[in-house]
Parts: sequence; C-alpha cells; structure tokens
Amino acid sequence: MTEFDLIARYFTRKPRLAALGVGDDCALINPSPGMQLAISSDMLVEGRHFFSDVSPYSLGHKALAVNLSDLAACGATPVAFTLALALPGIDEAWLQEFSRGLWALADAHGCELIGGDTTQGPLTICITVFGEVPRGQALLRSGARVGDDIYVSGTLGDARLALDSRHGHIELPPDILARAMMRLEQPAPRVALGIALRGIATSAIDISDGLAGDLGHILKASAVGALVDADITINLIAACANIDWSGSQFDTKKQLKTVFSGGDDYELAFTAAPAARQAVMAASLSSQTPVTRIGVIESGPGLRLVDSHGLPIDGQFASFDHFAPSGR
Amino acid sequence: MTEFDLIARYFTRKPRLAALGVGDDCALINPSPGMQLAISSDMLVEGRHFFSDVSPYSLGHKALAVNLSDLAACGATPVAFTLALALPGIDEAWLQEFSRGLWALADAHGCELIGGDTTQGPLTICITVFGEVPRGQALLRSGARVGDDIYVSGTLGDARLALDSRHGHIELPPDILARAMMRLEQPAPRVALGIALRGIATSAIDISDGLAGDLGHILKASAVGALVDADITINLIAACANIDWSGSQFDTKKQLKTVFSGGDDYELAFTAAPAARQAVMAASLSSQTPVTRIGVIESGPGLRLVDSHGLPIDGQFASFDHFAPSGR
Repeated sequence: MTEFDLIARYFTRKPRLAALGVGDDCALINPSPGMQLAISSDMLVEGRHFFSDVSPYSLGHKALAVNLSDLAACGATPVAFTLALALPGIDEAWLQEFSRGLWALADAHGCELIGGDTTQGPLTICITVFGEVPRGQALLRSGARVGDDIYVSGTLGDARLALDSRHGHIELPPDILARAMMRLEQPAPRVALGIALRGIATSAIDISDGLAGDLGHILKASAVGALVDADITINLIAACANIDWSGSQFDTKKQLKTVFSGGDDYELAFTAAPAARQAVMAASLSSQTPVTRIGVIESGPGLRLVDSHGLPIDGQFASFDHFAPSGR
Repeated sequence: MTEFDLIARYFTRKPRLAALGVGDDCALINPSPGMQLAISSDMLVEGRHFFSDVSPYSLGHKALAVNLSDLAACGATPVAFTLALALPGIDEAWLQEFSRGLWALADAHGCELIGGDTTQGPLTICITVFGEVPRGQALLRSGARVGDDIYVSGTLGDARLALDSRHGHIELPPDILARAMMRLEQPAPRVALGIALRGIATSAIDISDGLAGDLGHILKASAVGALVDADITINLIAACANIDWSGSQFDTKKQLKTVFSGGDDYELAFTAAPAARQAVMAASLSSQTPVTRIGVIESGPGLRLVDSHGLPIDGQFASFDHFAPSGR
C-alpha cells in the first residue's frame, strides 16, 4: 500500500461542509458570516502522551478529543480538522482501528477531516482543529473578575489515578479502574457545555495539565487570584466519591496532588458572575454535563486552598511541564 | 526553562491580524468577507525529511516553506500558521536559530504564528498554514483541459542533486553544490506566482514529490494526459544548464530521473490555455519568478515524454512515496 492508497482508504470521505477536502494542495473552507475561526493544534508522541500498547481505537479518539477540548474551552462549534501522522510503517489493522476511533468522535461532533499529511517516522499524531464562534463571544482566559464563582465540569483526577495504577503506585477496584482508564484513554471533550456557556462564563480553560496549573493560567491572564474549597474539589475524583480511603496510603495529601496537578482531565474550568448561577445550571442541564462550584475569584494573586471549614491548606501544585525532569 | 517560558521566549509575538494569538486555548482569526480559507498541514521528521546536522535556521525556514508552497499551489495569500514541535530537549541555541529562520520567512510573507504546541519527543515539526483566496478562485488540480500548455516555475532537480552529492553519488563543482544545497535546505515558496496566476492557470500543484508524480496528480484529477519535452525539462536542472555532463556518469537517463522524480523542488507545475500565454508571462514578470513551458495537455491518459525532435522517450518515474522501501 502506498502513502496515497493509505490516505484514500482510511482518511478520505466526500467533503460535506468543506468546499474542498482531502486530495488537493490545500483544503478550502467557507467561513460563516459573522463568525470567528477558532484554531488549535496538539501533538501526541508515543511514550510521552500514550503508552505503546494503547488500543489504536482509543488513540484515534483521544488525538481528536484533546483538540476538541480546546475548542470547547473557547465555546467554539467544531467544524473541521487536519491530521498529520508519522507512522513507523503501514499496519492496516492498526490504521483500521485508529481511523474508526477518530471518525466515531469526529462524526459525533460533526467535525470534518479536510486534509493532512502522512509520513514515516516515530509514531506521532498532530491534529489541528477548526471551530466557529460568533464574533466577540469566544470564552477567553482573561475575563475572570473578582467575585466570580469558579466551576469545573465532570470529574477530575481519575485519569491520573489510572496512570498511577498502571505504574503500580495505587491499587483500584476493577470497576473504578475501568472507569478511570476510560477517562485516561477516551476523554469526552466538553464541547456542548462550552457552547452553552457563551455569554455566561467570564473565562474558561480546559484542564489538560492539572487544575492548579490551568486555573493558574486564568488567574494570570485575568490578573486575579482564587480561593478554592479543597474538600469539594477532592470529591470530584470519582474514586474518592465512591471509596473511603481513610487509613490507606492514598491520603489527603496525595488526593490533593491528584486532583490539583493530575493532568489529562479534559474538563472545563470556568468562571461566571454569582448572578449567573441559574444560567450556569441551565447550561449544565442543556449540555448534560455535571458542573461543580469549587471557589471564588479574589483580588489577591495566586491560588489559596481552604477546607470545608474555611481553614487554609498548604499546597504547592506544579502544572504538568513536558520538559520538567519529573514529567511523564 | 519550562515549556511556557520556551513558547514565550521564542514563539510569541503580539497578534497583528489575528484577533487572538498564542496563549489561549485557541487562536482566533477573523476571515475576510468573500474569501475562502485555504488550509494545509505538513509534518517534518528528523532523519526522514532532514538530516540531523541541518542548520536549525534552515530547518525553521524549510518547515514553513513547504507549507507556504501548498498555499502557493492554490493561489492563496498566506495569513497565519500554527506550529507543533516535538523536541528531544531544550537547546536554547538551537531554538534561537530555528525560530530566527522561521520568523524570517514568516515575516517575508506576512504570515503570523498564532498558536501551537510543544512537547518532548523525537524532533518533529508539524505546521498548519492558513491562507485566503477569493471564493471560487483557488487553483485546483482538477481544472486542466486538453490543449492547455504545461508550465513549471524556477528550476528542478537541484535539491535531489544536493542529496545525491551528500550521499556520494555525484560530484558537483563547489558553486553549483552550494546553490543546490540552498535549494534543498531553504526552498523559496512560489507564493507571489501562485497569487498572480489566479484566474489564469487552469490547474496547479506544487512539486514536492517529483514532477512526474505531482503532474500525474493533475492528470488524474483532470482526467487528461500530458506530452512533455524532456530536453527542455532536463535543462531546468540548474546544474545541467551550467555544466556539460556529456561523457560523465550523469547521463541522460540519470538526468531524466533527477528532474522527473527528484522531489523537494517546491516549484509550481501548472496549466493554462494557449490564449493565456501573455498573461502567464505577465504573472511571471510581476512575481519575479521564471516560468518555462514544458508541454501540452492531451486527451490520452498518462505522461508521454518526447525529445526536442518530438521523438518518444521511454520513462517510468516513480513519485516519492514515504512508505516505499526505496524512499529516503
């Protein structure tokens, strides 16, 4: 099979929305009047972002999911994506499953594959995704205001627990582990919630490198600080909501680390004015996405943690850094 | 230096045209009314697309150049690009030079870096580029008509000679070698020519995998064939226009192979009606890009080569295939 056969067999469909799709020098899209184009790129490298033995179906899903998550964080509606793929060689069974996972998620979001590149090399996946958002309505990191509520969607930390379990650092009951593995390998991008939060959220970001670091980006861009309830946040770990860890090795300190610097969550963290609480709940309902209020924006810089009694908790949480020696 | 410092230091500038650039979940661009967005992605892998010892300045240039070349082939005006970069580690001297080469070409084309991703991994560069073209005016592969002239821009085959020289297969005089190495390492995307050919060329493609293969894409997409003058085409090798190779190992057969399946040329191959010859020459002049007429589109399928006397030449030329056993 040649490079061109490979593209034709696994990665070509008739263009729907795109004016011109896979198979010319460029893809062409017709932007909708009054819309801004939101663009994001993510690169996944074998051994760095995924294990070598991950199922290709999951990998196809996740490679697109992490990009759709960026669109979600901007409140953009997915339109199209390009796929650049370096493969060690042509493995048809692998390509079949990878493309199946990719198409399943793409179809679920009406997001069209419009072009890309394939080449030989260490397994690397680079997706660039395009979405549309009404001009001026994109959710940015810079809009949080003092007094705003802080929310996160879904659950946090479970992807990290799956990793820790895989590395032998923690033992999880089979059902909790299976759920955590799904969170790690097939995260659900919060696209519907992002769109529903247009005009409601004052700022938003997707949590890919850990809540502390990613919320930190909002704080920095908005020149504000945050007070966050650590007990509520710890309970966002599905494994903590369902298991009593008291007396185990997975103590509060480790739970805090898991939820605040776990990474790979692909949930949204966002802020909204207290007057918008009903609107936020309506957005949560209409998008069928659970949302939890975890704190409040304050003027002093940085992230302060308190327990359920309002007492301060010490915590220094590093954001995931791909070049840090301890980075996985 | 962290991942965020790296992005801030080498890959961040204040957005100009973009509504929002590097530093949020997505970049935002405002499409111009009446324009289509042209999009292309290319991935470059160390050891596959470039030697490990290539100068980082050249690599920064070439990574963007190959993408701009795709815009050129569509007649699109460059607007913006994203950069996803996997690096084995942080080498500041390397990043300084790589970003210098990248910015120099980006600035020359008014093309803005609006986002991307950096991660640790085998050196891999993935750029997605965005251009604009008036709706319906993009140059496609599918528009060639029987009787159209066939043109190529600039010179062909020299990048391949530089590779062959590097592999010890041919010896070139120092000045010719230096020029060939520049063609290999710092190709000049034919953006101005592509724009000038809007409304004139009936089809176009950029020559990245070799003239035979890439012209073949036009023939297939347009359901036509081509008759090409091999003698004229051989003379497009700068090293052949300047050196008498008769009696050397670099015989006609090798010259044909070099010019028809050399690859890495990043010139444009395009077609235009005979009535448009003056318009093509005007486009060549206004874009300061040499253009040579090498043949004519005919109805019979495939590519036929003839010598300057119109006599047929046998030639089977493979297009470059990243997954073929003989691919470099």
